[in-house]
Amino acid sequence: MAEPLRIALAGLGTVGGGVIRVLDENRELIARRAGRPIEIVAVSARDRSKDRGVDLSRFAWVDDTAALADQDGIDTVVELVGGADGPALTLARRSIAAGRSFVTANKAMIAHHGLELAGAAEAGGVAFKYEAAVAGGIPVIKGLREGAAANQLSRIYGILNGTCNYILTTMEREGRDFAEVLAEAQALGYAEADPSFDIDGVDAAHKLSILSSLAFGSRLAFDGVVITGIRHVIAADIAEAAALGYRIRLVGIAEATEQGLFQRIHPYLVPVDHPLAHVSGSLNAVVAEGNFVGRLLFQGRGAGDGPTASAVVADLIDIARGEYGPAFAMPVAALSEQPAADAGGRVGKAYLRFIVQDRPGVLAEIAAATRDANVSIESLIQRGKRPDGSAIVAIVTHAGPERAVAEALARLSDSPSLTGAPMLMHILEE
Amino acid sequence: MAEPLRIALAGLGTVGGGVIRVLDENRELIARRAGRPIEIVAVSARDRSKDRGVDLSRFAWVDDTAALADQDGIDTVVELVGGADGPALTLARRSIAAGRSFVTANKAMIAHHGLELAGAAEAGGVAFKYEAAVAGGIPVIKGLREGAAANQLSRIYGILNGTCNYILTTMEREGRDFAEVLAEAQALGYAEADPSFDIDGVDAAHKLSILSSLAFGSRLAFDGVVITGIRHVIAADIAEAAALGYRIRLVGIAEATEQGLFQRIHPYLVPVDHPLAHVSGSLNAVVAEGNFVGRLLFQGRGAGDGPTASAVVADLIDIARGEYGPAFAMPVAALSEQPAADAGGRVGKAYLRFIVQDRPGVLAEIAAATRDANVSIESLIQRGKRPDGSAIVAIVTHAGPERAVAEALARLSDSPSLTGAPMLMHILEE
Repeated sequence: MAEPLRIALAGLGTVGGGVIRVLDENRELIARRAGRPIEIVAVSARDRSKDRGVDLSRFAWVDDTAALADQDGIDTVVELVGGADGPALTLARRSIAAGRSFVTANKAMIAHHGLELAGAAEAGGVAFKYEAAVAGGIPVIKGLREGAAANQLSRIYGILNGTCNYILTTMEREGRDFAEVLAEAQALGYAEADPSFDIDGVDAAHKLSILSSLAFGSRLAFDGVVITGIRHVIAADIAEAAALGYRIRLVGIAEATEQGLFQRIHPYLVPVDHPLAHVSGSLNAVVAEGNFVGRLLFQGRGAGDGPTASAVVADLIDIARGEYGPAFAMPVAALSEQPAADAGGRVGKAYLRFIVQDRPGVLAEIAAATRDANVSIESLIQRGKRPDGSAIVAIVTHAGPERAVAEALARLSDSPSLTGAPMLMHILEE
Repeated sequence: MAEPLRIALAGLGTVGGGVIRVLDENRELIARRAGRPIEIVAVSARDRSKDRGVDLSRFAWVDDTAALADQDGIDTVVELVGGADGPALTLARRSIAAGRSFVTANKAMIAHHGLELAGAAEAGGVAFKYEAAVAGGIPVIKGLREGAAANQLSRIYGILNGTCNYILTTMEREGRDFAEVLAEAQALGYAEADPSFDIDGVDAAHKLSILSSLAFGSRLAFDGVVITGIRHVIAADIAEAAALGYRIRLVGIAEATEQGLFQRIHPYLVPVDHPLAHVSGSLNAVVAEGNFVGRLLFQGRGAGDGPTASAVVADLIDIARGEYGPAFAMPVAALSEQPAADAGGRVGKAYLRFIVQDRPGVLAEIAAATRDANVSIESLIQRGKRPDGSAIVAIVTHAGPERAVAEALARLSDSPSLTGAPMLMHILEE
């Protein structure tokens, strides 16, 4: 059998430990598939003394993470440190400069520095791979870069954050409110102590920007993603959505339009018979639409040590097989610069929810604002009274331009009848 | 840009025409992704004069299909002729022997001769690829061979035949009977004039045997697939299954067990909240379960010129990129010979349906037979009378060994109370 592929591994958290376990438990199978053994030879992490439940004594320990790049005899560096900049980025640059292939699960770093790193890898003739950065164990990077490569893709969308999906589907199943379910998720370890990257949609936006670039041949444009998280979804939204035939999911959606690249993270109402409506708990799912293949759906576990490590090792097997591919499906120089598309002209249905004082005239005020903004109402539910005496008004509009809905909300912004900000959620078309 | 990848294309039916259209319409995009243009230079088909709606004058026409293998300047031969043997196999052997890479959508040929061809391709250092042979446009071959390569896979199953799924889901939606829906599907071109390969499960079995080999590292074992088609599913089965919380799908399932390789095509009752229950019409879906990645689901269009051509061209892009990979995820010599596992010891729930004479004692007879065979009944529905005076008895058993259910049916085989053969369908576990 050929020479082993020799790995340096930076970061020994849950995913790093998972990579070691995958390579141990499936060692012989992986060698048969890869055509040669894959061996970790050096590791680095912050704390050498911590017990990680795996035997590290067989690996060289390197205190300075960035120095892994220069270890003798290393073919490939695996970065599981995290963070858009700092040690992860330093390691990435040094590894590629030193002629190592580079594998990472670091979506933030790719969203911000992916093109620089991919360009350097191209110039150096090494692999730059990141299957684990999007949707955990689901081979969606490969699915887009290779599986759907014959297609012009028009749209890509999906459920990209397991924490948000766990919270939303738990709220849905148990009828509970956001804050309560979040607190429970934190206690169970399903949500971070500081959950904002997840629940405010930033993590999903990192992933979406990567998928967009891959799908549309455009340069990474994380700054062009319009982001709304799930913090303001209340139990009543989920109940009203259900009454109207929808479920609520945090959806990342990207489209190549004539006006440019549209990228949005947003809590969408998803029709109950749409595949995404059946994605529960911490699962992820991605849909891609191509001009010949039609609609492809990839679904699976989007996080956790096992699935994420599975994706990291899939990249290593590709590298062991000598299959490097272009990191963003084509050379970096061939990616096009796309302006961010203005969403105002997009046509679709919307869900609007108001918490209002339960007194005469409030409904007339809302109805007048929507009429004056040319927003046509498909259905409306008013329910009162809530424990504090307020009432809920939930509206689904007919399909119309998003800017009309924004105008209706602007007309109501100073209304003393409304308790708090209204909630706007778009509705995913079939 | 580098030299084009030069293709000879055999077979100009709907898929062949689709490949030409993909390469025409997405020409520039494909060249950017592949790193070089992909050009068809020669074609062959039975009838040169037929109008196929594409301009063939720019290609060399070769009358003798097998002679495509020896055309000067060809890198890769694409075979879309079909048939397990005959011209397709001759072309495959000659192409690989002549040092060409080889791409095919021919599941029958792979199921029967895949190892011979993969071995020859390995020896010759050329690619042998067949993404389009299973599940049309869904990149499931790549998903297993590469995306899930880090995992020991324990089970793979899915909806592999679009014609059967179209018929079953149309029966489900419209409450109509099999023969009527089949006739309509034939009239619409969704089913072949001779539909037996599809509806009797042979096509799905070809595909399943390929997935098994890829997933489990076992040698292709088409003869080990136990096949039941959908011919005997009646409208009442679908209605009773629905009343019990299930939908009926033709499922191909393969498992690596300690007793060997289990492979079965069978109309399964699928719980209504299982992802496969939501796969409608001619869609295909494949689920793979790995020891680290957990459960992966791939879904999309499993047939048709666009999706199938998309998969063929994805293979060509891989080849243009120089990424050949091992055809069955590892060298042919590394695949293991697995005995076929006996299904009798498998434990699961089953659905049994009897059409009986509506007279006293019939139910007691069925109940006695199940009791004597140690089959425990979870639920039973009796409905009469049908137009011909008979009644339906539908049973769902508790989980138990399959051989017990077989014994219960054997005990009833001579019963004069039964009108026709009983129907047995297994129930897919969550």
